[in-house]
Amino acid sequence: MKKDISQVVIKRMPRYYRYLRYLMDEGKERISSAELSDLMNVTASQIRQDLNNFGGFGQQGYGYNVKHLHDEIGKILGLDKTHNLIIIGGGNLGRALATTDAFSKHNFYMTAIFDCNEKLKGTKVGDIVIRTMDELDSYYAKNRVDMAVLTIPAEHAQEVADRLVKLGVKAIWNFAQLDLEVPDDVVVQNVHLSDSLMRLSLNMLQKENKVNTGNGKRNRE
Amino acid sequence: MKKDISQVVIKRMPRYYRYLRYLMDEGKERISSAELSDLMNVTASQIRQDLNNFGGFGQQGYGYNVKHLHDEIGKILGLDKTHNLIIIGGGNLGRALATTDAFSKHNFYMTAIFDCNEKLKGTKVGDIVIRTMDELDSYYAKNRVDMAVLTIPAEHAQEVADRLVKLGVKAIWNFAQLDLEVPDDVVVQNVHLSDSLMRLSLNMLQKENKVNTGNGKRNRE
Repeated sequence: MKKDISQVVIKRMPRYYRYLRYLMDEGKERISSAELSDLMNVTASQIRQDLNNFGGFGQQGYGYNVKHLHDEIGKILGLDKTHNLIIIGGGNLGRALATTDAFSKHNFYMTAIFDCNEKLKGTKVGDIVIRTMDELDSYYAKNRVDMAVLTIPAEHAQEVADRLVKLGVKAIWNFAQLDLEVPDDVVVQNVHLSDSLMRLSLNMLQKENKVNTGNGKRNRE
Repeated sequence: MKKDISQVVIKRMPRYYRYLRYLMDEGKERISSAELSDLMNVTASQIRQDLNNFGGFGQQGYGYNVKHLHDEIGKILGLDKTHNLIIIGGGNLGRALATTDAFSKHNFYMTAIFDCNEKLKGTKVGDIVIRTMDELDSYYAKNRVDMAVLTIPAEHAQEVADRLVKLGVKAIWNFAQLDLEVPDDVVVQNVHLSDSLMRLSLNMLQKENKVNTGNGKRNRE
């Protein structure tokens, strides 16, 4: 449990969680590693190896107990605890994230929005009042903040990230189209939307440029 | 040029493009592979290998011509052509994507929004009029559509994807929290926001659970 777990494995964990949730909703109580492997298009041995990073949950001959595995992976992902997130950037993307139900289902709560535009001060997005950036420090001093979401233009992102880090924020969900520089004890998860769109374009071009190879599973990640 | 290029390489290409754009904006004309490597935190040999997948652009001893490499990678990514995108789902996320300037800068244009809610019909998001889903086929018949963006709940995503594929859409940018099943000649690029947030949570937990290892570069992807 002490060793570094690779980002490739970490990337797969939420997907396992998602599929187990789906199986639970379908009323499935047990699943063999072969079935799970087939459903997720990952080898059974890959699943075992991935789970072994976190102690392993296999039950030879009986497969996995769906609810148990779901709950254990939930704990690994930290979903058994609530997370309070503040959004920096009250533009369209920030507002969209603030009003997405999907996150609170997993115990992630958007609790505040900050924007540098004084005109937005006091306006509401759902139940959340938009605050100005000069209120950030006093808000942080009085409220629990577990993560910050950056939905601001790239040119201000590093400066705001520095300010958040100084306040004590340890986790940043970064939508700014920029790789942030942060200290070792801070984690950043990037959602670079333009990069994603360019990958779609490149993959489309690659597909057009060749005869069908029968390899159509790329979309599963 | 005929072989399959790995998704790991494809993932890095937009990042190269982003850094080269930044260098261009800074007025930089040439860059050695060592400098580029240092800036991007990728080895010089990795950069060469990645670019070699597309024919290679190295100039031994002189490094890279920034604008030339930027433009060539832009062509690889298909950014020299315009792409028209339709958005399925006129909720907050769909609206946010429709009004994001960053995409049109790279020749991706959001040209229409469709929603199943009849009440939204005719309302505008920026310059785009929201249409209902029953207008999709006739719109598709009359307009060029290069990609579709799915910003609808997971439970309707597969059904809508099937309809898009039947119409002839070859590229789907999928924000629904679901892995779509599509034919071999269709590409899907997923943006699973909840998965991304869970990865942030897991990485934060991993970081908390261990002494600092000095490995603080994980955020660069």
